[in-house]
Amino acid sequence: MATAAEAKRNSITQAIAELSEALGDRLSTADAVCEQHGNDLTWHEGEPPDAVAFAHSTEEVRKIVQVCGKYGVPIIPYGTGTSLEGHIAAPHGGVSVDMQQMNAVLEVNSEDLDCRVQAGVTRKQLNEHLRDTGLFFPIDPGADASLGGMAATRASGTNAVRYGTMRENVLSLTAVMANGEVVKTSRRAKKSSAGYDLTRLLVGSEGTLGVITEVSVKLYGIPESIAAGVCAFPDVESACNATIQTIQMGIPVARIELLDTEQAIAANAYSDLGLPETPHLFLEFHGTEAGTAEQSELFGAIADEFGGGQFNWATKTEERNHLWQARHDSFWAAKNMRPGMEAFSTDVCVPISRLAECVSETKKELDERGFYGPTVGHVGDGNFHVLVFVDPSDETQVASCNEFLDNLVLRALAMDGTCTGEHGVGLGKKKFLQAEHGAGLQIMRQIKTALDPKNIMNPGKIVSV
Amino acid sequence: MATAAEAKRNSITQAIAELSEALGDRLSTADAVCEQHGNDLTWHEGEPPDAVAFAHSTEEVRKIVQVCGKYGVPIIPYGTGTSLEGHIAAPHGGVSVDMQQMNAVLEVNSEDLDCRVQAGVTRKQLNEHLRDTGLFFPIDPGADASLGGMAATRASGTNAVRYGTMRENVLSLTAVMANGEVVKTSRRAKKSSAGYDLTRLLVGSEGTLGVITEVSVKLYGIPESIAAGVCAFPDVESACNATIQTIQMGIPVARIELLDTEQAIAANAYSDLGLPETPHLFLEFHGTEAGTAEQSELFGAIADEFGGGQFNWATKTEERNHLWQARHDSFWAAKNMRPGMEAFSTDVCVPISRLAECVSETKKELDERGFYGPTVGHVGDGNFHVLVFVDPSDETQVASCNEFLDNLVLRALAMDGTCTGEHGVGLGKKKFLQAEHGAGLQIMRQIKTALDPKNIMNPGKIVSV
Repeated sequence: MATAAEAKRNSITQAIAELSEALGDRLSTADAVCEQHGNDLTWHEGEPPDAVAFAHSTEEVRKIVQVCGKYGVPIIPYGTGTSLEGHIAAPHGGVSVDMQQMNAVLEVNSEDLDCRVQAGVTRKQLNEHLRDTGLFFPIDPGADASLGGMAATRASGTNAVRYGTMRENVLSLTAVMANGEVVKTSRRAKKSSAGYDLTRLLVGSEGTLGVITEVSVKLYGIPESIAAGVCAFPDVESACNATIQTIQMGIPVARIELLDTEQAIAANAYSDLGLPETPHLFLEFHGTEAGTAEQSELFGAIADEFGGGQFNWATKTEERNHLWQARHDSFWAAKNMRPGMEAFSTDVCVPISRLAECVSETKKELDERGFYGPTVGHVGDGNFHVLVFVDPSDETQVASCNEFLDNLVLRALAMDGTCTGEHGVGLGKKKFLQAEHGAGLQIMRQIKTALDPKNIMNPGKIVSV
Repeated sequence: MATAAEAKRNSITQAIAELSEALGDRLSTADAVCEQHGNDLTWHEGEPPDAVAFAHSTEEVRKIVQVCGKYGVPIIPYGTGTSLEGHIAAPHGGVSVDMQQMNAVLEVNSEDLDCRVQAGVTRKQLNEHLRDTGLFFPIDPGADASLGGMAATRASGTNAVRYGTMRENVLSLTAVMANGEVVKTSRRAKKSSAGYDLTRLLVGSEGTLGVITEVSVKLYGIPESIAAGVCAFPDVESACNATIQTIQMGIPVARIELLDTEQAIAANAYSDLGLPETPHLFLEFHGTEAGTAEQSELFGAIADEFGGGQFNWATKTEERNHLWQARHDSFWAAKNMRPGMEAFSTDVCVPISRLAECVSETKKELDERGFYGPTVGHVGDGNFHVLVFVDPSDETQVASCNEFLDNLVLRALAMDGTCTGEHGVGLGKKKFLQAEHGAGLQIMRQIKTALDPKNIMNPGKIVSV
């Protein structure tokens, strides 16, 4: 009689054989390919799948789900591999479904300010495609992620304070559900009250309910005028308080980003910004010429009130691009300061009124533990990131880092915040969901069990075992 | 042996006895009370519940759900009774849970621009409460609905084009689920990627998954300047095209409302507006003094391009209030034109590029059938309402009206729109969900069955039998 492990191995072998027949050389079991598809950008321990399928169509994804469903084999959707909490690891083995070759922009509806793309289209690719339309797609996580992956992790970025996150910007999804059915979650109308919100149920479900194959998102007109600049503050509290007042006054700031002193120093070294060695806000205003001038004037008055320095403008497009490239390069700038060390990226989000306190307490704990941990924040949303540097061969340091990460989440939860603002749960934040959601976690489990009774969709992530 | 009907009757009698013990005279079985709680604002056939429970706390609602769960008795949440698709009818009998006495504003967090209220608080009550804070809550369905009801039906209104619907504005909900557990769907952080979006799952679930007892919503600073006005157009197409261009140019219009010729005539008679007898846009701009001046100037140029008349300002607050009161009184103004007739209110929503076509075809069918049907639209969202007047004693007319309503939905669906933009499904739109959602409907049913296996939460609505 076959052992459980042998039976599992047989199922996988059979599934791979059937999939090979359907996909030919777009089904790979090569070690290097599997290894790469099981590892994300962090030092979450990667776990390779048994095979990688490179899908070309929703119909092919459906076929993959059907075959995997027949043999009870896990399916792990893969976008660009840039997630940060182990979302793409395959702890139970199975088939990684690589969506990168599903990269067609299917339709752009300029009059309705929306478009529909295959899940593998990346955010930069989409904006490149939109170049001549006068429209743009604002959501910008650090990496050039795929729209499918961004929807699956409920991603956001620097523009979310004005334009919202993927939650607000996904209009509709096409997904292959665990039962093999293809679902289109919504019509193209801007709003609807027609039944349960399947779009929002799939946004943030991290592949545990279905494989997203197409994404419809909202687009925006490129503003007539874009003004960006940086402003130094004496401390993190002042920068946070200036942000709170900016939001309260209804100034429609498009970006308002905090860099703490460590990150400012790192950005100087990596991107030659020449910032004073103190916390900074990076800002951007969108509107008409007169509108952005007024917004920045209003912000200037607020900054003044909170001890902010001169508001230094990036007047030319190249200067502005350099500034935001530097912001997006925060991760690499910080890495550059500690060559050879491992960096662990984490994020939490709290009500904005608690942000200064949460960041300060976190910096204090970093100091006490002797960690280098540059901090950046989407401060208008109360969301911040800490990049903790650790020598992975030093067990004491690793243990201390894990304690630090736990404390950070517990601190955020105690402030009515969340264990992750935009990175997602994956493997890394699973243990906090009970504390965060209480009885809600059981509801999530019931949904998972109802829609994926065999637990084949990205098992081991979020609520599934 | 008891028949099924007798067994059902016994269950209800026992549940009512237990609830009476817990609630005293806040559990009523009086005919008038039950009758009133089974009827909404339309001529959907009302069906009274067996009893009405007036709840005072989440704990009491939990008790009601537990008792009803024990006896398999339906629970129908009741806000202000202003819904439009039969949401509050009790086709299977049961207990109506009246939330109107749960009307406390629990907290206002000015720095975070949010607040938490009991589900029975109405939108006007909340804004009255916020009067001295400089903040406001923008969502404004026609009626002074409760926030619980508005969340349950995913309501919106005239401000949605700028501020979004209840989908975007609910931060968190407290709900008693069918299993008697109290769930708080989210923390107070502005964004989160921590698990399935239970908030959005409950928003629009119309009481079929749980009873909403508390609602946390986003607030906004009252703009420094508010400018409103009306603009006449030669036809509906021109008004729609001017709207499309306004949105495309990124003018952050706060309200942009279409009134067709019939509605303009009705508004003149009811609210003494003195409008030319032609389609109109009613608009409002929010911002700084300079900002609203610029917005209205930009709009003026667009209106000009599409043959719009002079943009007539409501410069004083009283004039502005009169204007929007007139808009909110559309229903009564139209009723006033056809005294003694029944009015049936319906809504659909389409991509904005299809709006002019959809409204025009709809008006044509109204004419062909000889119906009086004034039409108003949240035109920036592609959402419009038709109020059809029928003599309910004339069977031919009623049948023709039903055909018209069906055709309206099929027309919207054919344009990639939805059967309802903001009224909800209730009983009235159930039959269109298969056409609208396809395989998604089965997913909705699986969720309903998983979370409410006994089908006690508002049975007969949306996806449940």
